[in-house]
Amino acid sequence: MAKVGIVMGSDSDLKVMSKAADMLEKLGIDYEMTIISAHREPDVFFEYAKGAEEKGFKVIIAGAGMAAHLPGMCAAIFPMPVIGVPLSGSNLDGMDALYSIVQMPPGIPVATVAIDGGMNAAILAARMLAVSDPELLEKLKAHSQEMKEAVQAKAEKLDKVGYKGYTK
Amino acid sequence: MAKVGIVMGSDSDLKVMSKAADMLEKLGIDYEMTIISAHREPDVFFEYAKGAEEKGFKVIIAGAGMAAHLPGMCAAIFPMPVIGVPLSGSNLDGMDALYSIVQMPPGIPVATVAIDGGMNAAILAARMLAVSDPELLEKLKAHSQEMKEAVQAKAEKLDKVGYKGYTK
Amino acid sequence: MAKVGIVMGSDSDLKVMSKAADMLEKLGIDYEMTIISAHREPDVFFEYAKGAEEKGFKVIIAGAGMAAHLPGMCAAIFPMPVIGVPLSGSNLDGMDALYSIVQMPPGIPVATVAIDGGMNAAILAARMLAVSDPELLEKLKAHSQEMKEAVQAKAEKLDKVGYKGYTK
Amino acid sequence: MAKVGIVMGSDSDLKVMSKAADMLEKLGIDYEMTIISAHREPDVFFEYAKGAEEKGFKVIIAGAGMAAHLPGMCAAIFPMPVIGVPLSGSNLDGMDALYSIVQMPPGIPVATVAIDGGMNAAILAARMLAVSDPELLEKLKAHSQEMKEAVQAKAEKLDKVGYKGYTK
Amino acid sequence: MAKVGIVMGSDSDLKVMSKAADMLEKLGIDYEMTIISAHREPDVFFEYAKGAEEKGFKVIIAGAGMAAHLPGMCAAIFPMPVIGVPLSGSNLDGMDALYSIVQMPPGIPVATVAIDGGMNAAILAARMLAVSDPELLEKLKAHSQEMKEAVQAKAEKLDKVGYKGYTK
Amino acid sequence: MAKVGIVMGSDSDLKVMSKAADMLEKLGIDYEMTIISAHREPDVFFEYAKGAEEKGFKVIIAGAGMAAHLPGMCAAIFPMPVIGVPLSGSNLDGMDALYSIVQMPPGIPVATVAIDGGMNAAILAARMLAVSDPELLEKLKAHSQEMKEAVQAKAEKLDKVGYKGYTK
Amino acid sequence: MAKVGIVMGSDSDLKVMSKAADMLEKLGIDYEMTIISAHREPDVFFEYAKGAEEKGFKVIIAGAGMAAHLPGMCAAIFPMPVIGVPLSGSNLDGMDALYSIVQMPPGIPVATVAIDGGMNAAILAARMLAVSDPELLEKLKAHSQEMKEAVQAKAEKLDKVGYKGYTK
Amino acid sequence: MAKVGIVMGSDSDLKVMSKAADMLEKLGIDYEMTIISAHREPDVFFEYAKGAEEKGFKVIIAGAGMAAHLPGMCAAIFPMPVIGVPLSGSNLDGMDALYSIVQMPPGIPVATVAIDGGMNAAILAARMLAVSDPELLEKLKAHSQEMKEAVQAKAEKLDKVGYKGYTK
Repeated sequence: MAKVGIVMGSDSDLKVMSKAADMLEKLGIDYEMTIISAHREPDVFFEYAKGAEEKGFKVIIAGAGMAAHLPGMCAAIFPMPVIGVPLSGSNLDGMDALYSIVQMPPGIPVATVAIDGGMNAAILAARMLAVSDPELLEKLKAHSQEMKEAVQAKAEKLDKVGYKGYTK
Repeated sequence: MAKVGIVMGSDSDLKVMSKAADMLEKLGIDYEMTIISAHREPDVFFEYAKGAEEKGFKVIIAGAGMAAHLPGMCAAIFPMPVIGVPLSGSNLDGMDALYSIVQMPPGIPVATVAIDGGMNAAILAARMLAVSDPELLEKLKAHSQEMKEAVQAKAEKLDKVGYKGYTK
Repeated sequence: MAKVGIVMGSDSDLKVMSKAADMLEKLGIDYEMTIISAHREPDVFFEYAKGAEEKGFKVIIAGAGMAAHLPGMCAAIFPMPVIGVPLSGSNLDGMDALYSIVQMPPGIPVATVAIDGGMNAAILAARMLAVSDPELLEKLKAHSQEMKEAVQAKAEKLDKVGYKGYTK
Repeated sequence: MAKVGIVMGSDSDLKVMSKAADMLEKLGIDYEMTIISAHREPDVFFEYAKGAEEKGFKVIIAGAGMAAHLPGMCAAIFPMPVIGVPLSGSNLDGMDALYSIVQMPPGIPVATVAIDGGMNAAILAARMLAVSDPELLEKLKAHSQEMKEAVQAKAEKLDKVGYKGYTK
Repeated sequence: MAKVGIVMGSDSDLKVMSKAADMLEKLGIDYEMTIISAHREPDVFFEYAKGAEEKGFKVIIAGAGMAAHLPGMCAAIFPMPVIGVPLSGSNLDGMDALYSIVQMPPGIPVATVAIDGGMNAAILAARMLAVSDPELLEKLKAHSQEMKEAVQAKAEKLDKVGYKGYTK
Repeated sequence: MAKVGIVMGSDSDLKVMSKAADMLEKLGIDYEMTIISAHREPDVFFEYAKGAEEKGFKVIIAGAGMAAHLPGMCAAIFPMPVIGVPLSGSNLDGMDALYSIVQMPPGIPVATVAIDGGMNAAILAARMLAVSDPELLEKLKAHSQEMKEAVQAKAEKLDKVGYKGYTK
Repeated sequence: MAKVGIVMGSDSDLKVMSKAADMLEKLGIDYEMTIISAHREPDVFFEYAKGAEEKGFKVIIAGAGMAAHLPGMCAAIFPMPVIGVPLSGSNLDGMDALYSIVQMPPGIPVATVAIDGGMNAAILAARMLAVSDPELLEKLKAHSQEMKEAVQAKAEKLDKVGYKGYTK
Repeated sequence: MAKVGIVMGSDSDLKVMSKAADMLEKLGIDYEMTIISAHREPDVFFEYAKGAEEKGFKVIIAGAGMAAHLPGMCAAIFPMPVIGVPLSGSNLDGMDALYSIVQMPPGIPVATVAIDGGMNAAILAARMLAVSDPELLEKLKAHSQEMKEAVQAKAEKLDKVGYKGYTK
C-alpha cells in the first residue's frame, strides 16, 4: 500500500517530480504518482485530497509552479504532512511558486523545500516516515553515509589531480 | 439579488475589503459579503464557489493575503470573472499575495488589482457589469468626472495658496 | 462588430498577444487587433482609446513590457474593463511590467493577468462578456471541461506507462 | 520524554517561537525548548544536534533570522525531520532567513514554514507525529474543526452586524 | 516665464515634490507647480503636456507613485527632458514606481532619480539648464561648495567632540 | 568640439554603449567615447571628470554594471548632467547596477535610464542639449515622427496580413 | 597610531558606525573616525584615501547607504582591506546599499558585512589584524568565549523560568 | 605552509573557485584547496574548521551556493578572517547564497564578495595578508598597475579603431 502520494498539476512538472519518485524507490518506500490540477479539475482534486487518508497515504508530496495552489489546498484537506515543491519555469523563476507555497496562513502549514527540490521532498518524506520506522531510519543514515563518501571521493580526487586536472 | 460576491479569508481583511463594499454601494450595485477560508473550511468554500452562479453572482471579488489561494480557487470553480485583491499584512508586504494571485496558470485567470486595492476591485467589477448595463456605465462615467473634478479642485487650491500654504 | 480590442505597443509583443487572439477565435468572439504605442504615438493612442466605446468594444486587452503604460492609459480613457498583460523580454523578466500594470492608483483599475498570460487575458475577457451572454458562458464551461479532460488523459497515461515511460 | 525539540539562536526569537510551544502544549505533545547558537557556540550546537536522536526527539523545530544556519545545520546532523522557521527582524524582513532555510542543497531538506510561522511549525510537527499516532491525528482533526468554527462564527457575525458594525 | 514645470498626480505627493520647489527657488529658477493626474483626467493631462513647450518649459519634473505613468506620458509628448521622481507610499515602498518610471522603452527616455528624490530632481533640472546658462552653473558650483563645507563642518565637530559626544 | 562624453568601465560595455554613439551620430551631435574605470584607475578617472567641463562637454553618458560607481562619481565632479546607463551582465541582471546608479544621495543626481538603455541615454542627452538648440529640437521632433511612422507601418502590416501572416 | 580608519558619508550614519568604534575600543584597537562624502567632496575623499596607507591604516571600515560608493572608491585607492557596511534608511531598506557595495567588479573587492552590521565590521577588522597579532587573536577568542557564555546564560534562564516566565 | 584555505561544498563549485586559486598562484601565496560539505559531512567539516588555525591558515575562502552555510560555519569556528563567495547556479541566481552569506548575525562576520566573485576573494585574501607582508603589498600594487594599464590599452585601442572597428 502506497504511503506517499506524489501529485503535480501538469506533465511538464514530471522532470522535477520524477526525482522524488526515484529517491522514494531507492529508499524502498511505496508511492503513487498522479497528475491532478486543483485549478482545472477542482472536483477531481477534492476527491483525491479527501480520499488520501483512507487510501493509506501518510505524506503527500505536491509540486506546483506559478500561483502554486496545489500543495496548500492538499494541506487544507489532508490531515497529515504535505510537502510542497515550488517549481521554476515561469518568468519569475519559481519565486512566485515559493511564496505561494511557503507563506501559508496560521493553521495550515506546508513543509516547503527548495525550488525544484524534488529529490529533497522525497528525503523529507522519508524522514517523516522514519519517525516510526527504525528500518527506514537506518536506510536514511546509510544514504547520508553514501553522500558523505561521495564528497570525500571528490576531495581526494581534487587532492590528487589538482583543480586544473579536475576541471579538464 | 446580489450580483457581486465579496469574500475574504479572515476578518482582519475587512479593513481593505470594506472599501470594495463602500464603492459598490456608492454605485448602487447589490453585493453579498462574507468570510470564508479556503484553507480552514475547504468544504464550506467549495459549496460557496459552486453555488455562486445559481445565487446570481456575476462577479466575485476575493481578497487574500500571504499564500492567497482564495481568488484562484474561486476562479477554478466559478465560471464568470473573479477579481483578486492581494492583501498586505505579511512580512513580505503583500508581494507574496500578489504573486500567488496574479501568476495563475493558463486556463484559469484571476483579474488582479493592486495590493490592498479594495476600492479598485469594486470599480473593476462595476466596469464588467457595465458591459451590459448602460445605466451603470453612466454612473461610472459620472464617478470618473467626480474624480477629475476632485483633482482639479486640488490643482486650483495649490495654485491659489501655493505649496507652502497647502502643506501647512 | 468586434467586441474585444487587442492592442500592444510593438510587433515584438505579437508572440504572446497572438495567444489571446487564438483563444478568442476558439471561443467565437469577434476582436480587432492592432499595434499602437502610447509612448511613440500618444495622439494616435488617444484617438484609439477615446473611440473604442463607439466602435463597440466591450473589453480591451492591452499587452505591454517594461514601463508598460499602455494598459493603464487605456483604463484612464475607456470606461469598460481593460485587461493588462505584462510582457517579459526586459532584463527584469516582466517584473517591471507587472508592477507598472497592476499597481494602478485608486479609481482606475486594470485587470492584470500573469506575465506573458496572453491566453488567460482572452479567457478573462470571455468571462466578462459571458456575464450577459449565456451562450458564451456555455462555451466557457465546455472549454473548462476540455481542460479537465486533457489533465485526466495525462493522468491516465502516467498511470499506464509510468513516469519513466512518460518522460522518455 | 520530549518528542519535539524547539531550538533558536537568541532570546529575541522567543516571541515567535513561544507560539510553537503554545500549540504543542495545546496538542499535548511533550517538547523541550532551548537557546543554542550555531554561530556563537558551534560545539554546544554539535553536541545538541548529535544527541537529539538519543534523547528521543522525533522532530526538531529550529527558528532563525538573517543568515539562519541553525535549521540547516540541525538537518545535517539529526536524521529525522527538521522544521525551519524563518524569522523577520532584519532589514530584509525575513526574506534573507527564508532563502537561507528553504534553499537547502540536494540531500539535506529542511521543512520550511512561513516567515514568523511559529504556530504552523508546531502544527506541522504534530502532523508528522500523527503519521504513527492516531490519537494525535484525532486531536489535529478536532483543531481543524475548531478553526473552521471560528471562521464560521466570524461569517455569521459579519452577516448579522454588517461590515460597518463589524469594524467599529 | 517659468522654465520648469513640476507636476504630480495627487496632493499626497506634495511632501516630496515641494523639496524640488524649495531647491529651484534657492537656485533662482522660475517654475510652475501643479497637480494633474494622467489617469483621472487624461484630457487635462494631454493639454498640459502638449502646451508645455509653448508655455516656455524647458524641463518637466514629474513625480508619481505606484504604476507611475505620469513621467513617461509627459516624455511621450514633451520634446525636452522629463525628470521622473518615483514616490514611495505604496506597499512596495516605491520599487513599483521606480520600475514604472525608469524602464521606459527605446525612444522615450525619462531621467529618473532616486525614490522620493524630490530635491535631486531640482538639482538635475538645474544642471540641464546650466548647460546654456553660465550664471546658473556658477550657482550650482556654489551649492556644491556649500554641501562640501557642511560635511566638513560635521567632520570637524566629530573630531572635536567624539562620536559619543556627537550622538548624545 | 565634442559636446557629449561617453564613458564606460570596460570594453565589454561597448555592445550597449555603442547604441548611444549610433544615436548621437544620427542626431548630428559630436561626442567623444572612451573607456575609463573608476575602480581600476581612479586617478585617470579623476582627471577625466575634472577636465570634462574644460573640454567642452555639456553632458556625460556613463555606462556601468554591477556596483556601477562610474556615473555617480562623474556626477560628483562634473557640474552639468550625467546620464547613467545600468548595464546587465551580472548575476543580478542589472538590478544591482540600477540601484547603484539611481539611488544617489541628496545633492548629486544621476539621470538614470533603463537597464541597457544605451540608445535612450543618447536621446536624453539630445533632449538636454535641445533646451538651448532649436535646430536639434527639430531633429528630435523628426525622430519622434519617424518612430511614430514605424509603429504605424507595423499596424498597417498587421491589419493587412493578420497576426498569423505577420509572425510567420 | 591608528590602525583602522572608520569613514562614513554623513552624520546620520553615526548610529550604526559607532557600534564599530565601540567594538574596536573594547578590543583595544586604535582607530580614527571621520565623516567624508565621496559624492559631496570628492577631492577631500581622494586625499583621505590616498593618504590612508601613509597614516598607518591597515584596514578601512566604510559605511554608506543608498548608492553607497564610498567603500568601493576606498578600495579603488587604498591597497589593503576595505570593509563595507551597507546602511539601511532608504526606501529600499539597505538592499540598494548592499548591492552597491558587494557587487564590485573583478580586481577591486570590498569585504561586505550585513546591512547595518557596524559591530561585525569591527570584528572583521580585528580578525584581519589578528592574522599577524597573536595578542589580538587571544582577545578575539576571549570575546567569542564571552558570546558563548552569554548564550548559555540565556539558555539556562529559559530552562529555569520557562518561556512564559522569560518573556514576561 | 599554506596560508589560505580554499573550501567549497561541491565539485560543481570548482569553475568559480579555481579563479581564486589562479589569482593566489599569480600573487605567490600558498594555499590548500579542498571540497567539504558542511551539510553532507558535518563532522569532517568540523575537524577541518577546528584544525585550520593549527595548520597555519590565516584566511579561509569558502564558496557556497543556495542556502550557503559553509562560509558562516567556518567563521563560527575559525578565529581569523573568512571570505565568503556566493555562488550562482540555483533558480535564484545566487541571490539566495548572497543573503545566506552576508547577513551574518552580530559577532560572527563573513567578508562577503560579489556573486561568483572567486578572483576577488583571492585579492581580498591577499590584501588581508599584505597588512603584515610588505612584499605582498608591493605585488598587489603591481597587480593594480597592470589592471590600470590593461584598461588604458583598451581606451587607446578604442580611440584608434573607433567603436565600430572595436566591436567587429
